[in-house]
Formats: sequence, C-alpha cells, structure tokens
Amino acid sequence: MTGLLTDLYQLTMAAGYFEAGKHEDRAVFELFFRRLPANRNYVIAAGLQQVVDYLANLRFRPEEVEYLRSLAQFRSVQDAFFEELLRFCFRGDLYAIAEGTPVFAEEPLLTVRAPLLQAQIVETYLLATVGFQSLIATKAARICEVAGKRGVVEFGTRRAHSPQAGVLAARAAYIGGCIGTSNTEAGYRYGIPVFGTAAHSWVQSFASERESYERLQRLLGPETIYLIDTYDTIAGAQLAASLGKPLWGVRLDSGNLVELSREVRRILDDAGLREAKIMATSDLNEYKILEFMAAGAPLDGFGVGTDLATSADAPAIGAVYKLVELEENGGRRYTAKLSEGKHTRPGMKQVFRYADHDEIARAAECGTDPGNAVPLIRPVMVGGELVEPLPDVHAARQNARESLDRLPIACRSLFEAEQEYPVEYSPELKRLSEGVLAELNTEAQR
Amino acid sequence: MTGLLTDLYQLTMAAGYFEAGKHEDRAVFELFFRRLPANRNYVIAAGLQQVVDYLANLRFRPEEVEYLRSLAQFRSVQDAFFEELLRFCFRGDLYAIAEGTPVFAEEPLLTVRAPLLQAQIVETYLLATVGFQSLIATKAARICEVAGKRGVVEFGTRRAHSPQAGVLAARAAYIGGCIGTSNTEAGYRYGIPVFGTAAHSWVQSFASERESYERLQRLLGPETIYLIDTYDTIAGAQLAASLGKPLWGVRLDSGNLVELSREVRRILDDAGLREAKIMATSDLNEYKILEFMAAGAPLDGFGVGTDLATSADAPAIGAVYKLVELEENGGRRYTAKLSEGKHTRPGMKQVFRYADHDEIARAAECGTDPGNAVPLIRPVMVGGELVEPLPDVHAARQNARESLDRLPIACRSLFEAEQEYPVEYSPELKRLSEGVLAELNTEAQR
Repeated sequence: MTGLLTDLYQLTMAAGYFEAGKHEDRAVFELFFRRLPANRNYVIAAGLQQVVDYLANLRFRPEEVEYLRSLAQFRSVQDAFFEELLRFCFRGDLYAIAEGTPVFAEEPLLTVRAPLLQAQIVETYLLATVGFQSLIATKAARICEVAGKRGVVEFGTRRAHSPQAGVLAARAAYIGGCIGTSNTEAGYRYGIPVFGTAAHSWVQSFASERESYERLQRLLGPETIYLIDTYDTIAGAQLAASLGKPLWGVRLDSGNLVELSREVRRILDDAGLREAKIMATSDLNEYKILEFMAAGAPLDGFGVGTDLATSADAPAIGAVYKLVELEENGGRRYTAKLSEGKHTRPGMKQVFRYADHDEIARAAECGTDPGNAVPLIRPVMVGGELVEPLPDVHAARQNARESLDRLPIACRSLFEAEQEYPVEYSPELKRLSEGVLAELNTEAQR
Repeated sequence: MTGLLTDLYQLTMAAGYFEAGKHEDRAVFELFFRRLPANRNYVIAAGLQQVVDYLANLRFRPEEVEYLRSLAQFRSVQDAFFEELLRFCFRGDLYAIAEGTPVFAEEPLLTVRAPLLQAQIVETYLLATVGFQSLIATKAARICEVAGKRGVVEFGTRRAHSPQAGVLAARAAYIGGCIGTSNTEAGYRYGIPVFGTAAHSWVQSFASERESYERLQRLLGPETIYLIDTYDTIAGAQLAASLGKPLWGVRLDSGNLVELSREVRRILDDAGLREAKIMATSDLNEYKILEFMAAGAPLDGFGVGTDLATSADAPAIGAVYKLVELEENGGRRYTAKLSEGKHTRPGMKQVFRYADHDEIARAAECGTDPGNAVPLIRPVMVGGELVEPLPDVHAARQNARESLDRLPIACRSLFEAEQEYPVEYSPELKRLSEGVLAELNTEAQR
C-alpha cells in the first residue's frame, strides 16, 4: 500500500516533526464520530480488517519519495527525512472496538499509539476506511431491521463510489446484516454468499421472453429467478407460472410493488407454485421497505443497491482523528482543541458498556474494577504486530446481530429517537478535560 | 484487474449466453444517465481513463475461475465456459463522449460494441466508474462556478467512500474545475497540483501555538498557511500577524466564517500583510460558498472536503447500461425494455451538439451532413485497442471549463432551471423506437 494515499499535509507535518526532532515522540490519536448521522441512533463499527491490512503493508517506494522531493512544500526539507520515509514501517499500537459493535458519538473506535510521524501519516486512510464501512454497515442494519426475517441482498456495486468501494460496501453490508451480495469479488475475497441470476439484457438478448426464461431455467434449475418486468410484469408472471418447477421465484423491478406483488402472488399460487418466492428490487431503501411491510405486501426478499452502497440519506459521517496525548522530553502532555463546535477531550480513553448505558473513561481507569461492564476497546496490534487473529466477517455480523438485539427498541428506530442512548463521561475524564481546557485557555496558546 | 469485480448475474448470464451459443453475437450496450440528479441541469462526463484501463487489463485468474465453479449457480455449466473465461481479453469497440463534456439525461456517455459475453461482464465496473467520477466532477463544477476566481481545492479523501475512491474523487474534482487536491497519490498518479500544510494536531503537538507557527514558517516559507482556530481564532490571527512574512496566508476551520474572515482580514491588513490570503474550510459546499460570496466575505480560497468527495446532496446518479442492438444469425435486431418508468430506446446512437441544443440521433445518421453540429461520441478503442492517446486530466479540465462557458447561465445555476437544456430526438431515432416498441408490444414477448 502506498504511503502517498494520504492528505499532503500529513506528509508536510511529518517532515516538520522530523525537522523539530519530534517524530519519535509517542503520540496517541483517537478516531471517533463527532455526532451520529441524521436519523441514526447508533453506528455499527466496521473496516478494522482493512485498517490492519493498511498498517501492516504501508510503505513508500523510491519513486514516490522522489515525487515528494519535487514539491514546493518540501523544498527546505533535509535528505534524512526522505530516507526516514523509505524505511517507513508501522511500529505502533492499535486498539479498537470490534467490527459489528454499535457505537455512539465520541466513542473512540480506534486508538493509535505510535511515533508521532507514523500516527500522523495514517490519519486519512484510517478515516476513509472506518467512516465508509461503518456508514454502510449501519445502513444495512437499518434495512435488515425493517425487513425482519426476509433476506436482504446487497446489489449496489454499480452505484458505489468506484468499483473498489463496491467491494467494501458489500463487506460492510454483510456485517450489518445482509445475507449476501451480488459483488463476486467480495464473495471470493471474504467468503460472503453471492447472489444474482439475470438482468433485462438477458431477456432482450433472446428473440422471445419465453426462450429467455426456458434457457435460464435450464441453466440455473432451482436457483432460477425470472426477472418478469422487461415487457409486461403480469404477462411475465404468467409465463413464469406456465413453466413450473424448478424455480426459486421471480423478481419485480419496476411499477407499484405492493399491487404487483399481490397480483403476481395470485398467479403463482393459482399455478400451484406456493413455494415460489417474490423478490423486489428498484431503488429500495429502509423507508420504502417499511411501507411494503406496513401494507403487508407478499414480498419474500429484497435486493437493495444504490441507497445501501452509498448510504444515500446520510452519505458521510463526521469521523475525526484527534491527538489526545503526547510523550515528549520524558513527560506526558494531554492535548485538546478548543475550536468552536469542534472541541475535543484529552487523554487516551476506554469505553465501558453497561447493560443500559456506556461510560467513556480514561484508559488509566482500567485498573478499577468495572463491575459488570465490558471494556469495548481492545488491543489489536502491538509494536506493529497483530496480537491475535481478527474476527472474520461472519463473526462481525454475528456480533452486530447480537449487539443490536440488546439495544432498546427506540434506539433501533429508523428515525431519531426522542432520547439518545445514554453515554456518560467518567468523573476522572471530566476532571482531566477541565484541567487541560483551563490550562489551554490561560497560557499555552500564545 | 479481476473479472470478479462485477455483479454475479453478469457471470451467470455470460455462462447462459455461452451455453446458448450466443456469446459471440455482437452486442451494442449504451451507458447513460436516466435523469439528472436533484438540482443539476447538466452532468460533467468523467472516468473514461479508468474505463479504458479496466477494459485493457481485465482478466480471470485460475483461482478466481475455480471459485466460480464452486458456486451453486454454475453447477450445470460446462467446462468450456470456464476455459473461455481463462482466455478472456476484451476485444470489443468502445465509443465515448470526452471527459469534461457536459451531458444531459439519456445521452450515451459510453457505447460498448463487443461479443455479448464480453459486453455483459463489464457492465458493473463501467457504471461504478463513470457514474461516480461524473458525480464528483459535476459537484466540483458547481462549487467552482460559485467560487468564481477564488481557487477551490479538493480536501475530501478522509470522507470519501474508501481511500481508493478518494484518489478518483480528486481526479474528477480537478476535471470539474478544482485547482488541485490534498490527495498526494492523485497528485503523483495524475499530475494534479497538490496542496496542504498543517492540521490542528500540528499546533497541539508543540508546547505553544507560537512554537508551532514558527516551526511551520521555517519549514514552508512562502507556502506557509497557519491554521488559526485551534484555541482561539482571533488570538491565532494576531499571532500569525506578529510573525510577518514569509507566509501565504491563514486558514479558518470553524465558527462564523463571514464575521471571522472580516476580523482576521483587518488584523492582517493592520500588520501590513495585505497580500496574505484567507482560506476557508469546515464542511463547505456550493450553497455555503454562495452565502459567503453574497455577504462579500473576504475569503480568497476554499478547501472543500466531505460534500465534494461524496457529492453529498446527490450521492448517486441513475447510470444505466442498456442493450440496444444485437447481431445474431446474420441479422441485426434492435432491442428495448418497456418496464414502467424505465423504458429504453433501441439502436446505437450519436449525440449532435448544436450551438443551442443537442440532438440524439441514430449512429447510422452520421452519413448525413450535420451542418455546424459536433458529434460528441467518438471511437476510443477498436478491437480492444486504443485508437489514439486519451486526453489527460488537464485537457479534460480545459474541456469542462470551455464547454461550461458555452452553456446558458440558467443551466449553470445551483438550482433546477425552469427549462431543461433542449435535447431532441431525431426523426429517424423516433421512427426506430416506435417500430420496435410496437413490435415488442404485439408479439415478441410471449
């Protein structure tokens, strides 16, 4: 992985730390969401595997370093810095909340404790990785919550923000509760179940719709799903019914899905195909599925694309990565920013999850017995090495499902809950925050 | 590039075409936007370079083919199909509208004419590539339109949908009019100017704000931009002013940017730093910048991140890829789908751009003198080979700027224009559409 895949200022700052002799000061940065996106009462953490892959493989190639050397911003930087980049290999510690865990605003999903230069350079990649996958896992959880027992398949690669984002969206959607994806690379790479049979072009490519159906049935047998709306949905359903078994079912992709699903159900039942299923696609999302469910539409499964793979109603999340402490000159300094509406809390933290609330505490409080609370932040890499195998996507999905089941129903609503999930700050953390803020307000800033 | 990065149904259809002996039938697919996203009166075409890279390098590795063979959907598929995949190499023709060109609904940005099996498999990647980059180039064009002579820098990688999407967002934003990006990999790969100096962590990492500013000035000289809001914006501006030249300017990242920019301008001017610039960041977009401009805020440049790299107010575009004709059994058949609200027009097309309107015509009409119209769709690859070097991002950006200048002002509004830009269909294309639709409605579908 190239070290250049970051914001330029991470690299100019790295050069500055090096010139100031601060590049090996041990820094602690925390990655968290400033606030939850609209209509979300929780966010599902995801993307840790890709963070680990990145940290373990991050390097600078000689031609990349030459490129940096050619930029105006590095004009006055000494050779030793560029040599340092050529030796770059992440040697820090990574702590994280497990993938699939619901988290709330200000809870650190990742903590990086590393030499300042290293911890700074990785910021951009970590934010983009965890922010995006967490958005999509959360969107999937919302959709699956509404769909209940009906399976939801992720179909969004074509509308994802690049094909590569589509692979990661498929991964995150599976963690969030989807039963699988149409993205074949995601199936291959992560062992996620893959789904998909045929598109309109299949039907169009044969001289008649009948021929296209017969060919599909011969090809797929019990996996056959006819896409019945290419020309006329009702006629398509009658044709499907006339061909009988084997088939899995039919797919509706346009028109009023509540009305059409009822008519198609009747056609299939009348032909003795009671087990044939009806799957719906067509720009679906959790809000539309909620309406189908409320109307009792006889739909057995959903393929969700665009809105899922882009988290369309909340396409970004305010993920930030903030310096909270620094060891320098043999001492430790706690840091915060006071910017209007964007202030941060100093010091490395732990999140304790109790049955009915969370507490954000100082990491140093781990010496105190937390009673029946579970500490969510655990070591993942120490000194640049993985401490134990990461849970795979199946374990992350299981974690999401079990954790969501434990959340209050109000919190799992599609809409903003009247009360936020209770997240408290420990007295020790508050004391530290107040002390650091007071100090910064009085003297340190001039 | 792996052939698995596609929807599974492209591969099951490919197997079906192969089994039916249709895989070498010459198909024409067109990629277009069904409608423009909200508030957009045009879309800037982008992503062609990545389409060409993909088509030229698309392969299936043996272990990937083995994976497909293991799936239930391929249970009954003969070995010869998998051998075909191992030999896969795109041999088709690609036609496209140049990057940077404004396009309108239903105008084909890409046309793929290739053996049916090949043209089908590439659908997903092409849609995700062109859809995403076109969205971002368009968002950038809107922001740059409002910012006028003030430079806009793309800062959004951390909020992009994966780090890889960030690189492509930077590329597309540059085509759309940004003066550069913070994404260093995009700078390296595409020769886009890169910008960035320091973050809050830089200020926090030093024992005093003063030391952090002094160090930055020593490092960057005339490139120095102080980020002045870490603790107190006005105090930060006074500190910056006291350090004098060399500097480029200061950056505001929180608070009310209209008021703050006026106060900071006064502080800089009073210190004789009239040439020092003020740059603004902080969740900006075209609507906020419009307000700054209307208020006459003394801002000299903008860094736009989240909303640009995700096209936040319109995070997806209805890009589709539709089969329009097929050569089979020695004849040519024109195809369309009639699905409710999603019908398509048959036959390969050309777009003629006149001074004040576009005409979508049949490709076959190119034999007729178009007068002063410019045909927008041009051959890019023939038989899998590039016909001439593609214009680079600088040429694409120039194309965007010149083409946008020629559009009516109403069309360049941030809001929906009262009248859509006029796009007509040629009489020949209408005749073909009507003929094919009538035929499909009467007989072909049963």
